[in-house]
Amino acid sequence: MSKTMSINAGSSSLKWKLYDMPQETVLASGIVERIGLADSIFTIDYYNGKRYEVTLAIAEHETAVRLLLEQLIQLSIISEFSEITGVGHRVAAGGESFSDSVVITPAVLEEIQRLAELAPLHNPANAMGIRAFKNILPEITSVAVFDTSFHQTMDKTRYLYSIPMEYYKEHNVRKYGYHGTSHKYVSERAAVLLKKPLEKLKLISCHLGNGASVCAIEGGKSVDTSMGFTPLAGLTMGTRSGDIDVSILPYLMEKESISDINEMIWILNNQSGLKGISSVSSDMRDLHALEDSDEQAALALRIFEDRVKKYIGAYAALMDGVDAIIFTAGIGENDIQTRKNIVDGLSYLNAELSDERNDCRGVERVISSNQSAVQILLIPTDEEVMIARDVERLR
Amino acid sequence: MSKTMSINAGSSSLKWKLYDMPQETVLASGIVERIGLADSIFTIDYYNGKRYEVTLAIAEHETAVRLLLEQLIQLSIISEFSEITGVGHRVAAGGESFSDSVVITPAVLEEIQRLAELAPLHNPANAMGIRAFKNILPEITSVAVFDTSFHQTMDKTRYLYSIPMEYYKEHNVRKYGYHGTSHKYVSERAAVLLKKPLEKLKLISCHLGNGASVCAIEGGKSVDTSMGFTPLAGLTMGTRSGDIDVSILPYLMEKESISDINEMIWILNNQSGLKGISSVSSDMRDLHALEDSDEQAALALRIFEDRVKKYIGAYAALMDGVDAIIFTAGIGENDIQTRKNIVDGLSYLNAELSDERNDCRGVERVISSNQSAVQILLIPTDEEVMIARDVERLR
Repeated sequence: MSKTMSINAGSSSLKWKLYDMPQETVLASGIVERIGLADSIFTIDYYNGKRYEVTLAIAEHETAVRLLLEQLIQLSIISEFSEITGVGHRVAAGGESFSDSVVITPAVLEEIQRLAELAPLHNPANAMGIRAFKNILPEITSVAVFDTSFHQTMDKTRYLYSIPMEYYKEHNVRKYGYHGTSHKYVSERAAVLLKKPLEKLKLISCHLGNGASVCAIEGGKSVDTSMGFTPLAGLTMGTRSGDIDVSILPYLMEKESISDINEMIWILNNQSGLKGISSVSSDMRDLHALEDSDEQAALALRIFEDRVKKYIGAYAALMDGVDAIIFTAGIGENDIQTRKNIVDGLSYLNAELSDERNDCRGVERVISSNQSAVQILLIPTDEEVMIARDVERLR
Repeated sequence: MSKTMSINAGSSSLKWKLYDMPQETVLASGIVERIGLADSIFTIDYYNGKRYEVTLAIAEHETAVRLLLEQLIQLSIISEFSEITGVGHRVAAGGESFSDSVVITPAVLEEIQRLAELAPLHNPANAMGIRAFKNILPEITSVAVFDTSFHQTMDKTRYLYSIPMEYYKEHNVRKYGYHGTSHKYVSERAAVLLKKPLEKLKLISCHLGNGASVCAIEGGKSVDTSMGFTPLAGLTMGTRSGDIDVSILPYLMEKESISDINEMIWILNNQSGLKGISSVSSDMRDLHALEDSDEQAALALRIFEDRVKKYIGAYAALMDGVDAIIFTAGIGENDIQTRKNIVDGLSYLNAELSDERNDCRGVERVISSNQSAVQILLIPTDEEVMIARDVERLR
């Protein structure tokens, strides 16, 4: 028996879950927010819904980790630091260096930092989390689990852009894809749910959250995905534009007197998507509330649905058919209407939702009708348990 | 009976065709190239394959038009200028101002020039052609036929990008689409070929030339298309990148020390696509010749096919099925292998090519097998005759 931590470190936050493995029992979970500020918030959820919460100044990630471990002892969840047998870290970008999760050595950590140029907002924060645990628990195995590695099975025809080849050869510009851990998790669950070997399945996984991507999975392997070199590409997202005509950039920069392209990219990442179209909110729940009275809110919803539907169609063509369409993540798990609107009008695939089965949130189930040739699945994602499993596998 | 000219004016060229309408008989056609240089080339093709060709200095478009009309008299194709009863001009961008072809008034010409900001390479040249004919044939009807107007039937959910709404409202940033005249022509021919009313058909038109776009046509109306705000978006093209992750731009600009975004856009328009991937050529024929010996040439072909296939899939989803897939333009009409590879593996749609029927170039015919539920059509495009027809309709 071993206690494994699953970590997702942001620049000012540390999200964690403690598992008893291999049973995958969650012993406790929590988050430290506002690290570096005077009023950091520190919470632990444990045993049947009990919560420990405190507000205090936490200067850096290492302090947060020490506090967390000490508090786990205080709450009798562990009896000493050394009881933790492994720590798994979510890392955004693994580039072409990591096609699987890996035990973190100094060389691995260095490479994660080098790859920060592909994910400047995430990899440095992930590395901070790794260092914080390394300093406090130097003896235990720590493992990096990359958002990109599941997609390393993509063929060159899919991951190369139609740009001068030297940009790939010299600067590694290619499609990497993200949300890989989630797409992998739901594809494995789909095989269980469908009682078929994953190797024989053609799946389209729709990870629809504030960030969103679609993945075509054939025989358990990612064959294409909608995010690209960065998470900006693909679907309409909460605040990200997804696919647009690149020529819009110089045109808008001139019109809006923006001289720095990074300012445009910031707008495309933070002021666009559902928020940009609706001019109101990046949150689907707000948009649904306004849908009947506000044309732009309704438009944002319709555009979101349209883009997902087109990716489903594209990936069905790519794989010459599809056995199951999977919905996961915040919107995918909870937005009944959006699921319905996306699948509506896919009768050419013989894909049909059961309104009754679809009338639910956050449970793992088949939501297609009995007549549907394509199975439609609702599968709550669990990236944390995937991280814990990889720690167990590699330690 | 009336003689109508169909004109496609470039910045240093003037391509034309003279029709006897309404029979649509081509009386003569030709091109003036290298206008503005000392060795402009002037050709007229007329009566059963005869050709008149001369090299001389032609300073400007107006000179070219005068020379052309005088030579038509010399060759007894017309007897006097006034025999020309109408001139139709291809215009690249009509923005939201023109959802149909239009008789050119001074106000229309002014608007075409204003819209040059959407098509800086094309609209000014098109306007030059218009003015040249206006000056020499001031009395006759001239008509503008826009590459964009066929797509003005797209719904907001399709033409809006997921960017802040004010960019659309204030700066007209949206998807316009191009190749509209071609997509419209082949869709009308498809209805004839299929002996079904256009209003009842779901069509996917693949205009595959050096520039390339796919169009979803439902009931004779464009409902979506792959080109965007400009012709840069969508498919992999001869030298254009098609869809890429916008974040690639700032990354590459830093890596390559490019400070002007317009330089990047130039590369994406002129050094990318098939040429960029293969590092050899933008021409499919060259790539086919190298396919077996050169990995990059083969990759370029596979990527081209992959992107077309994904758009076909996306548009089948959008329309909930498809009755016919149309191939047109240079590659679509002549590249047997590319057509085959695109359609290969669409058995989930019950779309199947007949290898025997597909073994042809540039003829109008059904190329799907008898078993195929989706008809696959080869239809040589004819944008010139569409322009002549619109002149007849509007004069």
